[in-house]
Amino acid sequence: MRIALGISYDGSHFSGWQTQPAGSSVQDALQRALTEFTKHPVPIWCAGRTDAGVHATAQVIHLDTAVDRAAQNWVRGLNSLLPRNIAVQWARRVPDSFNARFSAISRQYTYVLMEHSVRPAHLPHLIAWSHQRLDVLSMHQAAQVLLGTHDFSAFRSAQCQAASPLRTVHAISVERKGALILMQICANAFLHHMVRNIMGSLMQIGKGKWTAERLATVLQGRDRKQNARTFEPNGLYLTAVNYPLEFQLPTGNNALPWWQLANGSDTYHATHPH
Amino acid sequence: MRIALGISYDGSHFSGWQTQPAGSSVQDALQRALTEFTKHPVPIWCAGRTDAGVHATAQVIHLDTAVDRAAQNWVRGLNSLLPRNIAVQWARRVPDSFNARFSAISRQYTYVLMEHSVRPAHLPHLIAWSHQRLDVLSMHQAAQVLLGTHDFSAFRSAQCQAASPLRTVHAISVERKGALILMQICANAFLHHMVRNIMGSLMQIGKGKWTAERLATVLQGRDRKQNARTFEPNGLYLTAVNYPLEFQLPTGNNALPWWQLANGSDTYHATHPH
Repeated sequence: MRIALGISYDGSHFSGWQTQPAGSSVQDALQRALTEFTKHPVPIWCAGRTDAGVHATAQVIHLDTAVDRAAQNWVRGLNSLLPRNIAVQWARRVPDSFNARFSAISRQYTYVLMEHSVRPAHLPHLIAWSHQRLDVLSMHQAAQVLLGTHDFSAFRSAQCQAASPLRTVHAISVERKGALILMQICANAFLHHMVRNIMGSLMQIGKGKWTAERLATVLQGRDRKQNARTFEPNGLYLTAVNYPLEFQLPTGNNALPWWQLANGSDTYHATHPH
Repeated sequence: MRIALGISYDGSHFSGWQTQPAGSSVQDALQRALTEFTKHPVPIWCAGRTDAGVHATAQVIHLDTAVDRAAQNWVRGLNSLLPRNIAVQWARRVPDSFNARFSAISRQYTYVLMEHSVRPAHLPHLIAWSHQRLDVLSMHQAAQVLLGTHDFSAFRSAQCQAASPLRTVHAISVERKGALILMQICANAFLHHMVRNIMGSLMQIGKGKWTAERLATVLQGRDRKQNARTFEPNGLYLTAVNYPLEFQLPTGNNALPWWQLANGSDTYHATHPH
């Protein structure tokens, strides 16, 4: 049978999602725990292959197994075997037609940035930081040029292996939330480093070094060399993956991002993974 | 001259405040950076000697030096020399009569706890966790018996070296804040493990295992063995130290706790350390 799992992780001390010979990736840690739990090797597939240092509140994976357990046993059993910086949020049996990567309609990433004169001591890996005042409204307005279907070659790393540079951005926003700046982007899929390169160019706009027109020109030019520096992975989270409703994946059972904990509903405790 | 510094740190990977032969404490890291900055050995004194794994948003220290620099140079210079999990928030020249420990009128500690079926993957060292539903109102009401001046021997570790077990609690509260539970306590000073032992007993009340009367009995009994288990250090923060107004220490320049970042004023960026 096929099982889908909702996963949250702190990517700070992993080499990224993708399996590595040294076993230092999020995928490796999950596959080790799953093998221990099911007593057989367990290849897994994920919705978004996050970079080294990038985090997830709502990663989705699938796997095939003959092991038949209640959803809460998958959650509790795996969490007792996983390192502290990875947690399974929910488990759900899905039809064999479900694929965590190919069934996904869209992914949402969120950058969390603190703008302050002093760097953050508590969340150094979990938050991006700017000591410079940023023009958030200009960042938001300029970002809207990225909406829709474009050739995102200017925002793609040299290592990107995607067959096509075309991606469709459904929504993008930059806003202040208290002392934080949040950049959220939802697209059908992302090229390698695409979110970090978009944030890099938006930072130039926020600092007043680039105009909105320059961002439009960079997009149209399709030349990575004309673009800004790739922004740091700290503070970047995979925060949602959307699937067709027919798969009935749990919604609302993902990890509440830390920056929403003090605002979240006080019934959060009641969202059990089954 | 005497300099006071406001310090924030993530205590997860330190052996506590107090200097250690292996140099693994917060004090050791600060003294190394200060020695590099001032080019002379720099003994320091702090307001609250936090345990291993305990954090601070608003620790205060003082030191003596002949080095005369602007406040912002102390802040920027030290932050460039300190590890990522310690940051100086502000610096202020103070009279020689100021002592970070002995001038302090009171200290405030805050426990941050998440109540959820799944353990937190993003802040494992920065947040306490309970998978059990807690009766927060009962915790708050029972805690009020600790108000005032008492012999806190029942809440004191065997290693405590304080001359007197008498301490005066000015305020204590337990409340829900979104998906978090916050326990705040303000006292003139604290015995070793006093906050963690108070939280341990309040957790028993929150789980319905103890009545409020039992907490009162434990306090009156002055016997550590009758008390609950010392609660985990994760999630415990030194969040304020109060001094007489005559010293004119900066207020509002301390690190905004991570759980308040999304609620904080959007002018947080403007609180410069000088």
